[in-house]
Amino acid sequence: MKLKIKQKKLMEHLNYVIKGISNKNLIPILNCIKFDLTKDGLYLMSTDNEIAIKTFIDKEEIDNIEETGEIVLSGRYIYDIIRKLGNEVINIEEVIDSQILITTPTSSFKLNCNNVSEFPNLDLEFSKDPILINQQLFKNSINQTIFATSTQESRPVLTGINFKLNNNVLTCNATDSYRLAKKDIDLNENHDDVDIIVPSKNLIEVVKLLNDDDKDVELHIFSNKIIFNFNNITIMSRLINGAYPDTSKLIPDTFTLNVKVNLNSFYNAIDRASLLTNEEEKNIIKLETKDDFLIISSNIPEIGNVEEKVELLEKVDNNIKIAFSSKYMMDAIKVFEGNEVELKFNGEIKPIIINDVENSKLLQLILPIRTY
Amino acid sequence: MKLKIKQKKLMEHLNYVIKGISNKNLIPILNCIKFDLTKDGLYLMSTDNEIAIKTFIDKEEIDNIEETGEIVLSGRYIYDIIRKLGNEVINIEEVIDSQILITTPTSSFKLNCNNVSEFPNLDLEFSKDPILINQQLFKNSINQTIFATSTQESRPVLTGINFKLNNNVLTCNATDSYRLAKKDIDLNENHDDVDIIVPSKNLIEVVKLLNDDDKDVELHIFSNKIIFNFNNITIMSRLINGAYPDTSKLIPDTFTLNVKVNLNSFYNAIDRASLLTNEEEKNIIKLETKDDFLIISSNIPEIGNVEEKVELLEKVDNNIKIAFSSKYMMDAIKVFEGNEVELKFNGEIKPIIINDVENSKLLQLILPIRTY
Repeated sequence: MKLKIKQKKLMEHLNYVIKGISNKNLIPILNCIKFDLTKDGLYLMSTDNEIAIKTFIDKEEIDNIEETGEIVLSGRYIYDIIRKLGNEVINIEEVIDSQILITTPTSSFKLNCNNVSEFPNLDLEFSKDPILINQQLFKNSINQTIFATSTQESRPVLTGINFKLNNNVLTCNATDSYRLAKKDIDLNENHDDVDIIVPSKNLIEVVKLLNDDDKDVELHIFSNKIIFNFNNITIMSRLINGAYPDTSKLIPDTFTLNVKVNLNSFYNAIDRASLLTNEEEKNIIKLETKDDFLIISSNIPEIGNVEEKVELLEKVDNNIKIAFSSKYMMDAIKVFEGNEVELKFNGEIKPIIINDVENSKLLQLILPIRTY
Repeated sequence: MKLKIKQKKLMEHLNYVIKGISNKNLIPILNCIKFDLTKDGLYLMSTDNEIAIKTFIDKEEIDNIEETGEIVLSGRYIYDIIRKLGNEVINIEEVIDSQILITTPTSSFKLNCNNVSEFPNLDLEFSKDPILINQQLFKNSINQTIFATSTQESRPVLTGINFKLNNNVLTCNATDSYRLAKKDIDLNENHDDVDIIVPSKNLIEVVKLLNDDDKDVELHIFSNKIIFNFNNITIMSRLINGAYPDTSKLIPDTFTLNVKVNLNSFYNAIDRASLLTNEEEKNIIKLETKDDFLIISSNIPEIGNVEEKVELLEKVDNNIKIAFSSKYMMDAIKVFEGNEVELKFNGEIKPIIINDVENSKLLQLILPIRTY
């Protein structure tokens, strides 16, 4: 293998694949990045067996391809070396004894290569019928739901987002059993039904690499894996086995009270009230309707108490007194994009539903905490 | 106590005093901020017994002083509450049962006060003969030396900066016994000699509050404390007892080799070479002169090796082979402000001296590591 490439271009793609290397030191080959230089360009690959990332630099963006070939290098070292080289043309050349020589006019690095045959064989073939979704929409949808997934390994299915495709609507469901986040994405084409669970950990890496532009991301779904393909980047994630709970039954159709509030005023009021809550006691705050206001209150007896007023945007003819986790409420409302949110209640022990007034595709649910 | 004050103004000053509260929970009163509202304005005070900070908000900057008085509040809570209130006028009022009421049109906080009499009595009287130093110069001087102080409590005198005033030059000395940083500040007025040690931990807080403007900072030096006064902020630090080692003997007058290099090129070369060093082995790198270049090299046998070339700005007629900690060298050179640095040698086991070519007030010394 022998090539010349601009530092900036190589770095851009190392920034993608570095996210796929393992952070553990158990299996050295999983800390590595594979370089595969072909006549068409340079492929970079990494995997920790949970996720695999592959990117491609077209030959047009490479200064010179002198000799094709494959090498496998410690990901952390090659990443840091290229990062710290100035923005000039870098020579990379395989020399004897499976060593690689990386040179610029002033720097000369010799790095020992790992065995190419030890690098896992990544099966990244695409399906014939990928689901196409606008990248920004998909990125937002993950961000609007992923925080509600569980971090507890005791119920593995809850540690991922459930993607359910039905009647050409892709629903992202996330729940840790105390709250639920649900986002519907309308698809433009007909697809077979899907019901899979993708680990949150891997989706976090996918989200980091998605752009805010108008291009689509392709979702290639298989029985045991999902492949995301966008902007010359291919990411494979394993799926979580098991049946995802049917969350649709949790969401009521009718409510005894709907209130509308300004999103920022409501968020800030909860944020301030949460200053006088304890994490050990689930950050409980109380909410009640009073005249034309929501009254939000909390206290820590040794420290003091707080009462916040938030104006209701429409008059209501029913009242509520309810308590919930301020942290969960803040997580839920901060992902809405409009100016107003709607809170829907069915009494003090029934789930609270939060909707965006302008866009009903996103729904958040929080279970109350019994205190009254 | 009763006043109205703009959130932004109060926050600015809480940002100063919050740095003086204790991070430990051992003595609750040391986690507090004292408010002292007088006819002239509002004083805020904090102390953790190692450092004390006092700031003053003039009555002109307070919307209304209705009733003077003193209160003591949990620093962390009052800081977060004021921080999260919008930029409006805040009412603060002492109510019955030593409670304070903090209100805006939509928020109402009641906080329990601590006992005013328990708050330490801060003796912040000034000396008659303060040393005046340009704030920016003083801030830079601390930053250029403080990194060389020791973090090991086994030799307490090395955990601070030694300020030595002699012939109207104030010298800042810092050493952890492997390296030394020394900065001279010329004073404009005559002062008595001084030889004190100020804890680094407290100087870090002073530096955070110093501005880059042209105003002076006043240093009021006493036998057991130093008071810094600038921009309506008064900070007191205890001194470290003990005799500071005479570091002047360490610095040679003559050298067998002087080399001049571009600061950035040299820094970047060391930075890259340090990628192939181990922290457990003190990040050793080797440096030698060869023709018109410095050659910097290092290696980790399992990973690989690196060689960096840095052009010498002037021809030399002597040569050196020496090894040292790349981390110490990077710490030392990154605080220089010019474009060129001068490295001075007396052989492979003698201290390396680094000077700014343009400004000899700053000197860095690094002990080599024997490997050749």
